[in-house]
Amino acid sequence: MNVVSYRPRPEELSYTFGGRPAVGRITPGTVLEIYTEDCFGGRVRGPEDLPSQVCEFPYLNPVTGPFHVEGAEPGDTIALHFVSIEPARDWAVSTTFPHFGALTTTHTTAMLHPPLDEVVWMYDVDVEKGVVRYHARRGDFSVEMPLDPMHGTVGVAPAAFESRMTITPDAHGGNMDTPELRAGVTLYLGVNVEGGLFSVGDGHCRQGHGEVCGTAVEAAMNTVVAVELVKGVATPWPRLEDDDHLMATGSARPLEDAYRISQHDLVTWTASLTGLDTLDAYQLVSQGGEAPVGNVVDTNYTMVAKLPKAYLGRPEAYESAHARLRSLGERYLSSR
Amino acid sequence: MNVVSYRPRPEELSYTFGGRPAVGRITPGTVLEIYTEDCFGGRVRGPEDLPSQVCEFPYLNPVTGPFHVEGAEPGDTIALHFVSIEPARDWAVSTTFPHFGALTTTHTTAMLHPPLDEVVWMYDVDVEKGVVRYHARRGDFSVEMPLDPMHGTVGVAPAAFESRMTITPDAHGGNMDTPELRAGVTLYLGVNVEGGLFSVGDGHCRQGHGEVCGTAVEAAMNTVVAVELVKGVATPWPRLEDDDHLMATGSARPLEDAYRISQHDLVTWTASLTGLDTLDAYQLVSQGGEAPVGNVVDTNYTMVAKLPKAYLGRPEAYESAHARLRSLGERYLSSR
Amino acid sequence: MNVVSYRPRPEELSYTFGGRPAVGRITPGTVLEIYTEDCFGGRVRGPEDLPSQVCEFPYLNPVTGPFHVEGAEPGDTIALHFVSIEPARDWAVSTTFPHFGALTTTHTTAMLHPPLDEVVWMYDVDVEKGVVRYHARRGDFSVEMPLDPMHGTVGVAPAAFESRMTITPDAHGGNMDTPELRAGVTLYLGVNVEGGLFSVGDGHCRQGHGEVCGTAVEAAMNTVVAVELVKGVATPWPRLEDDDHLMATGSARPLEDAYRISQHDLVTWTASLTGLDTLDAYQLVSQGGEAPVGNVVDTNYTMVAKLPKAYLGRPEAYESAHARLRSLGERYLSSR
Amino acid sequence: MNVVSYRPRPEELSYTFGGRPAVGRITPGTVLEIYTEDCFGGRVRGPEDLPSQVCEFPYLNPVTGPFHVEGAEPGDTIALHFVSIEPARDWAVSTTFPHFGALTTTHTTAMLHPPLDEVVWMYDVDVEKGVVRYHARRGDFSVEMPLDPMHGTVGVAPAAFESRMTITPDAHGGNMDTPELRAGVTLYLGVNVEGGLFSVGDGHCRQGHGEVCGTAVEAAMNTVVAVELVKGVATPWPRLEDDDHLMATGSARPLEDAYRISQHDLVTWTASLTGLDTLDAYQLVSQGGEAPVGNVVDTNYTMVAKLPKAYLGRPEAYESAHARLRSLGERYLSSR
Repeated sequence: MNVVSYRPRPEELSYTFGGRPAVGRITPGTVLEIYTEDCFGGRVRGPEDLPSQVCEFPYLNPVTGPFHVEGAEPGDTIALHFVSIEPARDWAVSTTFPHFGALTTTHTTAMLHPPLDEVVWMYDVDVEKGVVRYHARRGDFSVEMPLDPMHGTVGVAPAAFESRMTITPDAHGGNMDTPELRAGVTLYLGVNVEGGLFSVGDGHCRQGHGEVCGTAVEAAMNTVVAVELVKGVATPWPRLEDDDHLMATGSARPLEDAYRISQHDLVTWTASLTGLDTLDAYQLVSQGGEAPVGNVVDTNYTMVAKLPKAYLGRPEAYESAHARLRSLGERYLSSR
Repeated sequence: MNVVSYRPRPEELSYTFGGRPAVGRITPGTVLEIYTEDCFGGRVRGPEDLPSQVCEFPYLNPVTGPFHVEGAEPGDTIALHFVSIEPARDWAVSTTFPHFGALTTTHTTAMLHPPLDEVVWMYDVDVEKGVVRYHARRGDFSVEMPLDPMHGTVGVAPAAFESRMTITPDAHGGNMDTPELRAGVTLYLGVNVEGGLFSVGDGHCRQGHGEVCGTAVEAAMNTVVAVELVKGVATPWPRLEDDDHLMATGSARPLEDAYRISQHDLVTWTASLTGLDTLDAYQLVSQGGEAPVGNVVDTNYTMVAKLPKAYLGRPEAYESAHARLRSLGERYLSSR
Repeated sequence: MNVVSYRPRPEELSYTFGGRPAVGRITPGTVLEIYTEDCFGGRVRGPEDLPSQVCEFPYLNPVTGPFHVEGAEPGDTIALHFVSIEPARDWAVSTTFPHFGALTTTHTTAMLHPPLDEVVWMYDVDVEKGVVRYHARRGDFSVEMPLDPMHGTVGVAPAAFESRMTITPDAHGGNMDTPELRAGVTLYLGVNVEGGLFSVGDGHCRQGHGEVCGTAVEAAMNTVVAVELVKGVATPWPRLEDDDHLMATGSARPLEDAYRISQHDLVTWTASLTGLDTLDAYQLVSQGGEAPVGNVVDTNYTMVAKLPKAYLGRPEAYESAHARLRSLGERYLSSR
Repeated sequence: MNVVSYRPRPEELSYTFGGRPAVGRITPGTVLEIYTEDCFGGRVRGPEDLPSQVCEFPYLNPVTGPFHVEGAEPGDTIALHFVSIEPARDWAVSTTFPHFGALTTTHTTAMLHPPLDEVVWMYDVDVEKGVVRYHARRGDFSVEMPLDPMHGTVGVAPAAFESRMTITPDAHGGNMDTPELRAGVTLYLGVNVEGGLFSVGDGHCRQGHGEVCGTAVEAAMNTVVAVELVKGVATPWPRLEDDDHLMATGSARPLEDAYRISQHDLVTWTASLTGLDTLDAYQLVSQGGEAPVGNVVDTNYTMVAKLPKAYLGRPEAYESAHARLRSLGERYLSSR
């Protein structure tokens, strides 16, 4: 088993997809162990650390990478199977941020209101017990919620010579902020440039649907990813697969366009996997599909379209990359 | 126990919320047994029955009602607990419809494309087994999906002297098309006119998130609703409660506004139920909330914001109307 | 010449399109003289008259009417030519209003901000000089702008048994708030119910594009409308015609859908008037068309699509109703 | 007078803002003569040249540049005064393009319709007469429209290490596609990187509002730009100034957000130029402002907010850069 470990030094962190040389080269079939910093670069460590003061634009939402996948060319697909995602600290943090979030005016939903208060919430992270603990800032209310680690930001270098802030989700992946991107899931990303150049960041201990206040329970993570390359198979928008579901994503504004992209991709993917007529697939997805909301706060919004594989007779997608990577991940975990 | 049964004659069906006299008067505390016709008025009965031919605008999406609730005045809330929702036939139907649906041009997302093909899918409904069976129209693919009956359309007369097509969801309820409106759930609707004037229709045997093709697995239903009136408590947008969750809804365009309304209402409702500061409630909902998509096809789109009551210490909402109505429903069912 | 005058008593004002009996019957070919109250019902008369205090929901944006047009049936079109629109007072008023306007949170773009300050601006109206005078509330800045009277709200009873608040623009007309609806213009409205039932209100001494703060320079008006009926010609969305332009409107959210509706209608109208192929008309409108913004603040947003008739060889629309009504209006004015 | 001429070789054209070294260095005060290719790279030269066949993604919408402005640093503003914009050929071209335009499904407004027909329209350009001539493709209809040359795409390198396709308009400028960007206008762009790195392209002989079919009357141009640098004055979104108007732009989706950005910037700019209170400025812009639509087809939509300077007492903006550059341009023209 080929295992590679990488822990970025602070100055090695990336703030874009595209526009940067690779920090390492990965052979398909490799298990990659990485450390990812939280979206604040680890600088918000207590209630007094207001992100607008301790963080400096554009040094936000750092990602670990990019990694060059040997042999990856435009038209191929990189498969990233998340073997494990483990909080690196016993605390995590969430905040409001001036003019960021779904229930506040923003840079583009521009209004004449002053910003909402900037507030920091510190969470206890208890991996043993499998919970995070929320504490109200005013009053002594406190409650535990299940730990459900995920990565908000995973992507490759975009097409068309673009370089995009890590905060933006689009066809190349990026800051999709979907809770579906948890351990056990394989993410498929279409390759736009030689080597693909994928990066991973923005770990969340858990996240509500839409990330309504603008940030999740943000945490540094120790993450293990099993990497494969599917040659000659293109992927128009990021897709996910777990043991029981196929998932398509869409990232755009307004939110209905994110929904349309994800549902359109799920419908046409379903048709191509099963041989169903497009309208028959449209009907089946209409009645059997779910639509978990990703984010409604970033520069593009993200929706996921999700269908049980059982409804389709468990078709093989991406030459069974998910099954193979899952098995590789299990071998890795049992050898650890 | 006060039980009232009502089965509308075809000419008694309503096509608006508001603008119609009540078909009956209901005392709070009553259990109401009703029959609701499907969204096609029962006229689509086989693959050759194209809705654009067998249905006549505006006689679409009929509802049963309206019912006048004794004592209901503007500023009160009507609580409707869905005791049971049972398909009235052993078949159900779904269709595409010209220029209706999320992946087609529409009346308002106006484009120069001709409509997609109009196609009818007939479903088998097996209540015993708890499934519906989908059949592809082209090819012999077939699959069972769980039966999960719900009502797409429930509402009261709108404010401001309005009368609205049943197809439109808004602050008065209407065609929200959320799968969350299933048996076991209590729906809270703010009263705008004397008597409230609620109606129920548009049964679905099941529905995917967003109802992407424009229609669900449409069926006539035999439905039992337990009715209460909460005096002096206003409800800005329809809310739902089940044993474990509080839910707020929002209906608007674009879809992010439906999301904003529902999340805003859940945040402020949470704050008022618990005494939490608004930003503390914002934070808690951000990490603990779900956002099930209702519809992304109707004249307004609908989103639901959903939070486990456990996170809030199981507060009492609406003077415990849900618990009381649930108990009334159980007595009704055990007496049947 | 058949001239009818009507000045509503306060209790005769309407607050909806649809759901009300006619206040009078009009024979096609009639010149109708009416008085319209301002959007505040005349209750905001000075800087201390905050609309949220002196006005009572839903008694906002009153219209004069509805008028039954003899012989009008669904599928016909009512042509309303605005002969003159004259401010009835020497003052007018504009205000902010809590949670209303394009640069503030609203009922549907729901956020956690408190409302902006509610402020009243009084304007001097100088008909002789043809100006209105703006006065800043803080400081002594003052400036004159051209008087350009228009009606924000004109419409007919909606289809599908609906009754809609006057504040909402849609396919039936309503609160389109476009500065294009000035004297010299003919408005075409599709008839949905017997008699059509048109109403007119919401005079503005002038208005910027989009009515960004939520209100224009609001004024009571003495208005003269010449009325015709075009039998057997349907109108999908309100259209306007002046001596030199054809105009189509669209009202929806998001704003791009209002744009799409208006452009789609202008393209297909152009094709039907000229015999041009649809894509040829699409191209011509793309290069020659204007798109004046109506409102970006009401419950639906409104866009106008506008094309010089000269580009089309000055085709006859609506059986030359505009030319006939313009001539009728001139005769009326010269006889006055 | 410092005059610099630059005509790019084909391989020197740029397809992004950002991510490219400068093609030349410009001293503030310089008059720059450039040639810009059309959006198809000059490859669509007749009705058979379908852009999807003769053009290759991402080699679309080339720009001339980038130019490094000596001394420009983040926080400064580059002022580009368009002295003249002259069509370089006696023909121009417009087309539909698969899944691009406002009245068709797109990459993000994803639907199940096949694309509209791809059609090319060739225009005659008559600079003497000041017209372009449209010819219908089906039938022999033909009409002249005024020549009104403009640039669709002008911008600087974006912030945050980004590199963006030239087709995208955003805070850095880019493909705003507003007809307001014609000769006589000064464009202000905020500097994000050392030297600013501005580029110019996408000439249009004329364009309707919104560019509804996706392309304008596309042409190569010989363009003269007078360049200045305003030190220490930041510009949040591109602004324009002509002899009589101030203009702010916004580029975003949905279209109401583009409107909000542009109006918000015009309101706050107005307040800062005049000392008016923000709400007083909001009111003044509401009644006196125009809102010309830029594009409703690109990856972000663009709106312009426009106010007569006369309403503000003709305040000095950007240290009177417009007046100085206009005068420089006149000297250049008279010396030519």
